[in-house]
Amino acid sequence: MKRDLSVKEASDWIQEATPRLPAEMVSLFESLGQSLAEAVASPRDLPPSDCSAMDGFAVRAEDLVRAHSDQPVDLPVVFEIAAGGSPARPLAAGEVARIFTGAPLPRGADAVVRQEDTQSQGDRIRFTSAVPPREHVRDAGEDMRRGEEVLRAGARLGAAEIGVLASLGRSMVAVHRRPRVAILSGGDELVEVDGDLNGDRIVSSNSYSLAARCRELGAQPIYLGISKDDPQSVENQFRAALGADCVVSSAGVSVGDHDHVRPVLEKLGCNLEFWGVKMKPGYPLAFGRFDGGGLVFGLPGNPVSAFVTFEQFVRPSLLKMMGSERCFLASIRARLGEPLSKKVGRMHFVRVRLVREGQEWIATTTGNQSSGVMTSLAEADGLLIFPLEEENLNEGASVEVQILKRNWFSGQGPPL
Amino acid sequence: MKRDLSVKEASDWIQEATPRLPAEMVSLFESLGQSLAEAVASPRDLPPSDCSAMDGFAVRAEDLVRAHSDQPVDLPVVFEIAAGGSPARPLAAGEVARIFTGAPLPRGADAVVRQEDTQSQGDRIRFTSAVPPREHVRDAGEDMRRGEEVLRAGARLGAAEIGVLASLGRSMVAVHRRPRVAILSGGDELVEVDGDLNGDRIVSSNSYSLAARCRELGAQPIYLGISKDDPQSVENQFRAALGADCVVSSAGVSVGDHDHVRPVLEKLGCNLEFWGVKMKPGYPLAFGRFDGGGLVFGLPGNPVSAFVTFEQFVRPSLLKMMGSERCFLASIRARLGEPLSKKVGRMHFVRVRLVREGQEWIATTTGNQSSGVMTSLAEADGLLIFPLEEENLNEGASVEVQILKRNWFSGQGPPL
Repeated sequence: MKRDLSVKEASDWIQEATPRLPAEMVSLFESLGQSLAEAVASPRDLPPSDCSAMDGFAVRAEDLVRAHSDQPVDLPVVFEIAAGGSPARPLAAGEVARIFTGAPLPRGADAVVRQEDTQSQGDRIRFTSAVPPREHVRDAGEDMRRGEEVLRAGARLGAAEIGVLASLGRSMVAVHRRPRVAILSGGDELVEVDGDLNGDRIVSSNSYSLAARCRELGAQPIYLGISKDDPQSVENQFRAALGADCVVSSAGVSVGDHDHVRPVLEKLGCNLEFWGVKMKPGYPLAFGRFDGGGLVFGLPGNPVSAFVTFEQFVRPSLLKMMGSERCFLASIRARLGEPLSKKVGRMHFVRVRLVREGQEWIATTTGNQSSGVMTSLAEADGLLIFPLEEENLNEGASVEVQILKRNWFSGQGPPL
Repeated sequence: MKRDLSVKEASDWIQEATPRLPAEMVSLFESLGQSLAEAVASPRDLPPSDCSAMDGFAVRAEDLVRAHSDQPVDLPVVFEIAAGGSPARPLAAGEVARIFTGAPLPRGADAVVRQEDTQSQGDRIRFTSAVPPREHVRDAGEDMRRGEEVLRAGARLGAAEIGVLASLGRSMVAVHRRPRVAILSGGDELVEVDGDLNGDRIVSSNSYSLAARCRELGAQPIYLGISKDDPQSVENQFRAALGADCVVSSAGVSVGDHDHVRPVLEKLGCNLEFWGVKMKPGYPLAFGRFDGGGLVFGLPGNPVSAFVTFEQFVRPSLLKMMGSERCFLASIRARLGEPLSKKVGRMHFVRVRLVREGQEWIATTTGNQSSGVMTSLAEADGLLIFPLEEENLNEGASVEVQILKRNWFSGQGPPL
């Protein structure tokens, strides 16, 4: 078992060990947030033929070349084409057709004049200006051409992509399946959220926050509850987790006398590959693999350590399983609002708030950085990266900040 | 009915007309992504008492003042405290206790020495350096103090907030309830995603993308299908939508002869408040209210117009209903990668890709900006705001870009 990896070494190791999960066919609605396991090409032109972008009149532009407010041109409406309808016949010289948005242009017509730019003159329509050919016409295939790849394998399916797939008539789609993530915790001090909190007992809050994080990412959490500090209880719990794609234990896999996790893992055929990452919070992280291929993350027990190590290592692994193209937390450059110092030898992840000042983001810490203080994580917009070999960061230094909050910089108002 | 509002006027109008929905109690797991309808205070100190942050030994710092590698101090272990356990008795001078992470510190002890910084000497433990008081001790209440507000009303419940609520023993929590959003579309050219696409028929793709967007936001879409272009069909559909908090129709409420929506709305007691917003895409937007209070958005029929108007007007309205503090799309400053021009009088929302160059973001258009071209929206990271009164934007201009994609700048690798 390797010891004391850097964050980069541990990340690379885990990503290398992580498989992309196989594809499954799901209904379009269920695919939201998942990544495509197939490249999607269009089976036809869209729009299927030249069509109108407006409600108005299909015309031959050459008929209106001389139209002017002083010299209006009045033309007869010879038929009407509704959206979804078909033109009755081609348009001959000197004729116009009533047309609605999305309706196919009749042969002969090459432009559309908006209804509000015309006047009705009994059964004729008055035009008072010329119109360039192709005006208000959507070309056949302007959105998608038959055979063209419109979504690449790996694309994340958001609302716009769902719209594209729907317009192709794809009601079923291949995505990388959601990983099943077994979530375990252990310790005689822990109770469930509805448990008795007398004395020094605390809620197994990690399990709830990690399960929530899995859901947000599109993975499928399976919460297996709290094991007691005895070997049989721990073994029962890990046995229940066999078959999951990923096991996340926030009991920790430590060097403490009370730790029964390591021998249980070895008994169940899990090879522990490394222990200890040079970071803070989160040093006592363990990673291993079951013979069957399931990954095992032994996260530290402190809530903030568990959360930070989940974000750095478990999140990218789950996203890779789900076929995502970009698995790591987004980060921005910010200016440090206060001086920070630490010892060299570990990378620190510092909880910070981000405030925009002109073109810049200013990062300031959210108070108590103890790894037990979850409230200062809940207040944080991001994690400031304090590199392993650095000892001091001055106020005003340019720093990299990983973004944690989804709405960290949502707008306060409409565009002006 | 008002006509031709600016984007700001329409936004303000709609936000003013939007109620915050009442609170409901939901289970902690279900609350993910919703906003708190109550301020949450801690019912107790957390941690409940001073406790150890490490596996090691609880000591009296004064006993180790002279400890040094040349002059080790060996002390007896008089009892052991597991996490969840209680100290057997106070620690007397010259005694240490075995202690585990999270376990309460015995009275008398004021510091913890990590196991790996000690050596075992039979039944005694050898210490080779002094330790400052409070070292590796988590203070009672350092995370939360009894009575302290730890989450404010309106806070969005992400994974960290779920962890905080769990640690307080809150298994039920008050959130603003999810709005029910009736999604309608209409037109004889439209079919469902599994429909027959022969000829010029097209899929009602707006309904699928808008329903997906509602889900992403945490609202509850109710898809009511496609109505035909006749008054009875339109009326039946709107009747089915009565009672929803919000009706989103992408049939459009236009001036076309074939539009049966407006008379139906009036018949059903909907007051149409405005029509037409000076923007592109998306001009023919209508907004109204039912007597019962439900909001009605008549979105344009073109897929991109429907999507853009949804993001500008429906999204902020739904988020306000859900109690969100920041309802509008996030935006960043970017540098324009190409010149753009338009006529004055409408605000344009231009689909752009964002690429990071050093400290800056460069925005370039995603090709065909026709309001029917959904593929160029699926490729866009954001919408560039081209203000109403501007005619030209030069290459290199500083522009505001609203962010559309959740993972628009996700990381390619771990922090270095």
